[in-house]
Amino acid sequence: MIIIMKDALTAKMVLAEAQNRQLPHVYRFENRVGFAEIKNINELSFINQADIVETIADHPAAMQVSRTFHPDDTIIQTPHSKIGGENFNLIAGPDAIESAEHVLAMGQAAKDAGATILRGGSYKPRTNPYSFQGLGEQGLQWHRAAADALGMDMMTEIMSPTDVDLVGKYTDIFQVGTRNMQNFALLKAVGKQSKPVLLKRGMSATVDEWLSAAEYIASEGNCQIILMERGIRSFDQKYLRNTMDVSVIPVLRELTHLPVLADPSHAAGVTEHVTPTGLAAVAAGAQGLMIEIHDQPDKAWVDGKQALTPEQMVNLFTKAQTIHDIVK
Amino acid sequence: MIIIMKDALTAKMVLAEAQNRQLPHVYRFENRVGFAEIKNINELSFINQADIVETIADHPAAMQVSRTFHPDDTIIQTPHSKIGGENFNLIAGPDAIESAEHVLAMGQAAKDAGATILRGGSYKPRTNPYSFQGLGEQGLQWHRAAADALGMDMMTEIMSPTDVDLVGKYTDIFQVGTRNMQNFALLKAVGKQSKPVLLKRGMSATVDEWLSAAEYIASEGNCQIILMERGIRSFDQKYLRNTMDVSVIPVLRELTHLPVLADPSHAAGVTEHVTPTGLAAVAAGAQGLMIEIHDQPDKAWVDGKQALTPEQMVNLFTKAQTIHDIVK
Amino acid sequence: MIIIMKDALTAKMVLAEAQNRQLPHVYRFENRVGFAEIKNINELSFINQADIVETIADHPAAMQVSRTFHPDDTIIQTPHSKIGGENFNLIAGPDAIESAEHVLAMGQAAKDAGATILRGGSYKPRTNPYSFQGLGEQGLQWHRAAADALGMDMMTEIMSPTDVDLVGKYTDIFQVGTRNMQNFALLKAVGKQSKPVLLKRGMSATVDEWLSAAEYIASEGNCQIILMERGIRSFDQKYLRNTMDVSVIPVLRELTHLPVLADPSHAAGVTEHVTPTGLAAVAAGAQGLMIEIHDQPDKAWVDGKQALTPEQMVNLFTKAQTIHDIVK
Amino acid sequence: MIIIMKDALTAKMVLAEAQNRQLPHVYRFENRVGFAEIKNINELSFINQADIVETIADHPAAMQVSRTFHPDDTIIQTPHSKIGGENFNLIAGPDAIESAEHVLAMGQAAKDAGATILRGGSYKPRTNPYSFQGLGEQGLQWHRAAADALGMDMMTEIMSPTDVDLVGKYTDIFQVGTRNMQNFALLKAVGKQSKPVLLKRGMSATVDEWLSAAEYIASEGNCQIILMERGIRSFDQKYLRNTMDVSVIPVLRELTHLPVLADPSHAAGVTEHVTPTGLAAVAAGAQGLMIEIHDQPDKAWVDGKQALTPEQMVNLFTKAQTIHDIVK
Repeated sequence: MIIIMKDALTAKMVLAEAQNRQLPHVYRFENRVGFAEIKNINELSFINQADIVETIADHPAAMQVSRTFHPDDTIIQTPHSKIGGENFNLIAGPDAIESAEHVLAMGQAAKDAGATILRGGSYKPRTNPYSFQGLGEQGLQWHRAAADALGMDMMTEIMSPTDVDLVGKYTDIFQVGTRNMQNFALLKAVGKQSKPVLLKRGMSATVDEWLSAAEYIASEGNCQIILMERGIRSFDQKYLRNTMDVSVIPVLRELTHLPVLADPSHAAGVTEHVTPTGLAAVAAGAQGLMIEIHDQPDKAWVDGKQALTPEQMVNLFTKAQTIHDIVK
Repeated sequence: MIIIMKDALTAKMVLAEAQNRQLPHVYRFENRVGFAEIKNINELSFINQADIVETIADHPAAMQVSRTFHPDDTIIQTPHSKIGGENFNLIAGPDAIESAEHVLAMGQAAKDAGATILRGGSYKPRTNPYSFQGLGEQGLQWHRAAADALGMDMMTEIMSPTDVDLVGKYTDIFQVGTRNMQNFALLKAVGKQSKPVLLKRGMSATVDEWLSAAEYIASEGNCQIILMERGIRSFDQKYLRNTMDVSVIPVLRELTHLPVLADPSHAAGVTEHVTPTGLAAVAAGAQGLMIEIHDQPDKAWVDGKQALTPEQMVNLFTKAQTIHDIVK
Repeated sequence: MIIIMKDALTAKMVLAEAQNRQLPHVYRFENRVGFAEIKNINELSFINQADIVETIADHPAAMQVSRTFHPDDTIIQTPHSKIGGENFNLIAGPDAIESAEHVLAMGQAAKDAGATILRGGSYKPRTNPYSFQGLGEQGLQWHRAAADALGMDMMTEIMSPTDVDLVGKYTDIFQVGTRNMQNFALLKAVGKQSKPVLLKRGMSATVDEWLSAAEYIASEGNCQIILMERGIRSFDQKYLRNTMDVSVIPVLRELTHLPVLADPSHAAGVTEHVTPTGLAAVAAGAQGLMIEIHDQPDKAWVDGKQALTPEQMVNLFTKAQTIHDIVK
Repeated sequence: MIIIMKDALTAKMVLAEAQNRQLPHVYRFENRVGFAEIKNINELSFINQADIVETIADHPAAMQVSRTFHPDDTIIQTPHSKIGGENFNLIAGPDAIESAEHVLAMGQAAKDAGATILRGGSYKPRTNPYSFQGLGEQGLQWHRAAADALGMDMMTEIMSPTDVDLVGKYTDIFQVGTRNMQNFALLKAVGKQSKPVLLKRGMSATVDEWLSAAEYIASEGNCQIILMERGIRSFDQKYLRNTMDVSVIPVLRELTHLPVLADPSHAAGVTEHVTPTGLAAVAAGAQGLMIEIHDQPDKAWVDGKQALTPEQMVNLFTKAQTIHDIVK
């Protein structure tokens, strides 16, 4: 149940009283107070009726991430980026961290192309257990050093609640991957952190499931959440690894205040389709792109066949920025 | 089997001899001769080895529509449009023809917004048999009159081989809808016509199935085929009617020489998502867009909830043209 | 709108008056009268209120095929079979008619295994236009002769409204294939015939779309409709051609009174999975099975890799009958 | 690379030498030695050529779980059950543990109906963070007590690697749910345990992804893995929660030696379809069933609408056993 109070001050007082009464899962945004587990106004008789502007009983189950609770766009501030709203964010880096020199070189190329966030994996979710699983903490250290040297944000994937302290020691943004979108233990763990979380869509997740996964993070107190569409599973695996679901982007922009970015590298699966796929996402309203780059794609440790070269990245990012300016 | 001959003249001679021998399904493009049903060079011993530059045994089953057989983009010339290649085509009109005045007014608005093709349905494929099924020949007459008055091409859907003569009397372009993508009797019937055919993708058709459906048309002699992506069936029907499969567009642009256009109206299903969905398709490489328009969407006889108003159309088409110029 | 009258006699009178008033699409089942296009009781003021037991405004759009209109199971009587209700029907035969002798031999094997309906294709819907398209009328003649010699029903696929007279001259049951489930011109054409129609599910058709397709046939007057589940398109094409959707079977058995049969040959796609797939459909409540058989599968003209041998058919049919007896 | 040695003794010696050389991921089954990360026989020059019967370079990436490496059915022995091979296992219990009395009563009913494994959730993966998340350790204790009192195996879901010790203290079988199928940290954690793991299929997991997830568990040393099909995501969410993919069952039975069971409760989503869906899975070759039961489904804390009553369970299990006897 969402209660719109006459002003932010009374809303603060309602929240304080709710906390005093130990009501579970009560949140505030400006003059709105949301009671995630209460469906009946009678349970809220402590609120002065005269201070209530409107009560909304029929709101999305994923309340905090909905525009019903939080009408304005969320804008997330990291050390080097503003994400969401009118901003347009570029994220690039190697799929896997390979060496200190390599991540630095890729970061430099990314920065030169306009990116402010340097991505890279040190813990890799590989389909097969015998594939390279990432360099672990050594990779985190090289990644951090490169980001610091370049004045960029570091973003890296986390796969287990047991890694939160270790990864959190280095990264600026936690990335939760598609396979872990409903790994609720992990969502709760990053929900307790104070750093932003980028949450990729599950391979066949519905909009409601995705927003509920984001709500898991928010319900623990961390509302700095970025959604990332990365292609959905479809029925033609001969020519397409995944299908970039551009149709979901305007839907999300309406339903949620969270930033919505896109990952054309995984959606496309092959280098030659990354650029058109990425531009399509931007034209549909994505507020940023994340891509994988490599200077020598055929020697990449992981997923080289979907990496863009630095030159291809410049072409994509330049066009993406232009298209964003047209559609925003 | 595709044989690349030393020049177009020898290719013509090979084709003539193949026809003389009554070999089935032999086609020529410039200096290439394709034998759709022959897999073994030994069956082609009548060709002078010295005139052969290359033989390609491993080509797509849908041979004529592949770039292996026909490397250059197909450009289709209609009375008022050039479709394919570097051209960018805008198609608009009402979902259903409602009256002479209405189709003329919608056509005028479409023309003003840059469209050269006026769409409209007089035979409507409705899910339910008790829904309005279209005005039939009366609609065709009004549609033709409007197109003539405006100097536009007329395009309308055909649903049965029994309607080919009647519809063909009026239309400039036959439209085959998503439900009929594998209606092979219909494909063969329009394949015998001399007017272009726009072939929409089936709701869950693979790339190979779609190209093979196009090949049915080509195999009867009509190579003026336009492919149109219109959204695929996906797993979230709560918020999305279909998912515009932008990922298939660059795949098709590589595999086939046929023009690839997109229909964001059916992909989106609701007015407010038509524009971002359409722009996404253009950014992915679509060579044109088709949309449904209505001056009073809430009074439209069919599918008013996905119609753009003329003003919304102008906005979409202006941005679409700009994005096409960026990505082409 | 469905009106339940006090008895069949008054229902007959209401129907007669509705026809007298030229109301469109009015149907009767026992004491129920259904007005497919009327939503408001005020339009039916000619009915004597005292004779009305109940009015049902909220019924499925596909009214005639729903249990709301027709609570009892439909049982279809052909020359040699009773289909629907407690009956269990076995249908077998070659994919394509190959010769008079072959269809007779296959028919004999099918009959020996308990089948009463002999299937076989003379008009084949092939994905590729250059594949064998069926023997045409010659095939129909051989098929008819075999069915007559064996005292079986003949069932064959029809692909175009232009073939209705020709195919109808021979067959006992029209088969409409998965690619034509929403070929509305064809559905209307077979809806005007007096012989039963077997309607396969489209590759990704929803339940509502399928029932509405059946309603197209019924709306033209032919209510002898058999539904056949044949596997749906899914996301893993490496190991599965289609996924037999057993879950849809109990859903259909509730929603519709029409017989629901299953085709494990196309669902499985490979011989070794036809038997478990077929038995699963029976266990889920399918009222019959249709399979493809061939005495020399590796020499079959079409789809030999999914054909059962006569021996394999006997094994499947014996177990299927036993399982049907357990679950019915 | 799999090497078939002349006998088990030489295979043991090869394994010992491989371990001595610290080669990673080397496994043995009888006279076969599998090197999961080695593709080239030249790296195995220490093996005496004369002792080698056959070398298999082209094996599935998920090597240990494949029949190529392990031709015989795996049979898992728990305190009260034998799972796999010709055995047929029945698993039942409440969705969530609600009280000591309730789980005991449900266990008694399950045992009476033939079940040997008592399921129940104390850590629940709920789509929404504000839904009941399970009783935690209190639930585990009541669950364990009921299983002990009845002489049944206890099975319960684990959602995080941080819970392995706690859950492992109580349960006989770990259950990994559909949302965690590719939670690789969790798979590795249960792979280090000595108790069997039941691994549900991800909502849209391909066969290869599922078998690779199982291989994650096996790669850590735990080969006691049970696969459970629980319905896949499909395109019709109006009438079906999920589609029980019976077609995958015979595919798995060929590719892997692991037991393959089915969960009709989650596939069906509603009580009235659980029985036909479950029987279909058994007819397709499933080696057991797991269902959710409740004596008062409308008062169940979680998912009551898909629970069977004890009476309905008896009917399902009796028929399931009979069908298993027919098809095995």
